[in-house]
Amino acid sequence: MELDGIYAFAVQLGKDAGKLLIDAAQSRFNGNGESTQSFAEKDSAVDIVTKTDEDVEAFIKTSIAQKYPDHVFIGEETYSKGSSRAYLIPPTAPTWCVDPLDGTVNYTHLFPMFCVSIAFIVGGRPAIGVIYAPFLRQLFTSCRGRGAWLNETQRLPLVRNPVPPMPANAPGGCVFSCEWGKDRRDVPDGNLARKVDSFLNMAAEVGGRGGKGGMVHGVRSLGSATMDLAYTAMGAFDIWWEGGCWEWDVAAGIAILQEAGGLITTANPPRDPLTGDIPEVGLGSRLYLAIRPAGASDTESGREGQERTVREVWRRVRELDYTRPGA
Amino acid sequence: MELDGIYAFAVQLGKDAGKLLIDAAQSRFNGNGESTQSFAEKDSAVDIVTKTDEDVEAFIKTSIAQKYPDHVFIGEETYSKGSSRAYLIPPTAPTWCVDPLDGTVNYTHLFPMFCVSIAFIVGGRPAIGVIYAPFLRQLFTSCRGRGAWLNETQRLPLVRNPVPPMPANAPGGCVFSCEWGKDRRDVPDGNLARKVDSFLNMAAEVGGRGGKGGMVHGVRSLGSATMDLAYTAMGAFDIWWEGGCWEWDVAAGIAILQEAGGLITTANPPRDPLTGDIPEVGLGSRLYLAIRPAGASDTESGREGQERTVREVWRRVRELDYTRPGA
Repeated sequence: MELDGIYAFAVQLGKDAGKLLIDAAQSRFNGNGESTQSFAEKDSAVDIVTKTDEDVEAFIKTSIAQKYPDHVFIGEETYSKGSSRAYLIPPTAPTWCVDPLDGTVNYTHLFPMFCVSIAFIVGGRPAIGVIYAPFLRQLFTSCRGRGAWLNETQRLPLVRNPVPPMPANAPGGCVFSCEWGKDRRDVPDGNLARKVDSFLNMAAEVGGRGGKGGMVHGVRSLGSATMDLAYTAMGAFDIWWEGGCWEWDVAAGIAILQEAGGLITTANPPRDPLTGDIPEVGLGSRLYLAIRPAGASDTESGREGQERTVREVWRRVRELDYTRPGA
Repeated sequence: MELDGIYAFAVQLGKDAGKLLIDAAQSRFNGNGESTQSFAEKDSAVDIVTKTDEDVEAFIKTSIAQKYPDHVFIGEETYSKGSSRAYLIPPTAPTWCVDPLDGTVNYTHLFPMFCVSIAFIVGGRPAIGVIYAPFLRQLFTSCRGRGAWLNETQRLPLVRNPVPPMPANAPGGCVFSCEWGKDRRDVPDGNLARKVDSFLNMAAEVGGRGGKGGMVHGVRSLGSATMDLAYTAMGAFDIWWEGGCWEWDVAAGIAILQEAGGLITTANPPRDPLTGDIPEVGLGSRLYLAIRPAGASDTESGREGQERTVREVWRRVRELDYTRPGA
């Protein structure tokens, strides 16, 4: 398969789709279009979908079908309209996994953290990733073996001569990225309670929270899993921990993160966080823990520092319940 | 006083200072400078100050002293090195209040949400605001009576034909911006616990949390009070609630927010949130609640919608304790 040709096609597709997004947004604040965009409610008040969302997915789907008629296409909008919530990415067939607009809430509010996310998957694993945030003019791209890039010129991670090791006291010194998500049910020990419990452990002073205090450098929530992963690949976020998003939210980000040298595994800790296996990420698992690209220190390899950080996060976070409905 | 001349000077100063910030950052990822910038610890592991921070403040301070030798200058770095924590902005003298680098943690990690913040204060109130985020190439400016602007061409708020009213069910439908901050002490009912309690009330489903559930559209944390305020002025965030930052973090943002039509008051609720006075913001109060510019609906004016939202936030948040040390 000609990965280079597919990569060039994907990058151009991302640029074109991003332009559609920003043009529609600008029509709102230039007064040429609707002043407040109409949107339909989907699952809940926080799960809104715009007409733009659907239009951009249709554009991407059609473009791919014309160029690569034999490839499988999985898109957020198409999927959401179906009745199944099964994991549909095939184990072998070349597949595109697309979110036409990640950060829909941000988009409707014109907060710049929204993007188009396009992944090309080979053998069940993301091989090409394209994330374009047009309001920020930030384009993140990668192709297996060709490196990961910001705006096609800056190689990721940004700081790379050398790539900094993980802090010796991680998660201390780390920027921790997380999301409040859409599951806001106020039930005892539900996902919301467990998430906030985990955020608090990561944030609290060392020695606090019964020894779980992680005193991270900062806690960030952008409202876009895709942008979270892009900034983790860039090295701006050290740790991203999240449950509840879907394969189209993360597929391109995983491609870019892994190509940049980052590690991604599951959000849920094993029985013994300090010795349990660190599994390969499940693309459709809805549970993700990503660690930025890391260099070697005097005492450990970059991979060892990442794995140490995974275990220190697992020690502080609660198990989340995001099984696939009906799966 | 020639406010127009001072405005033009402040905007150019912001651009020049922002260029110093991004040049220093780029020297890190272009391999021309230190690969990991050295920094000194100040109050805690999360309160780091870079040499760039100090250099940029010196540049701004010197530029102002040359152009306006009679003006008072209050800068974050200069202030922090002094022993007093008193509020130093004089009631009448023309004063500059400057944060050379807001979002220091973001800057050291190269997460783009960092900026320079320059306010010019007349009669104790911010009259000119300049916020420049050079990695994002976003410049926010305002001058009393001349409007608030993004990149000198897009008037704020961005959506303005008409400006959308506050949602009828606010804080439902709102993007809520908040920060975890630097006070991470794990003490019962301390600031960290009260903040997270408040965040949870804002986020939880309607009917949850003993009737306090606000089901906001999204919760965002950027790690920069200045950028939070800029995006509230833009209309991207509906509500910003925060305690613990200082006058140089908010002075320029207050100028821009108010000129755009936003409301800002105190974070701490009065005894009766539904009837208590909505006081003018105290610039040095360290307690802030900002509401985005809002238009009229069929049933209320924009101001009425903002005040209703203030009360709905107050009903859900806890009182924070951020008195000025020694004041």
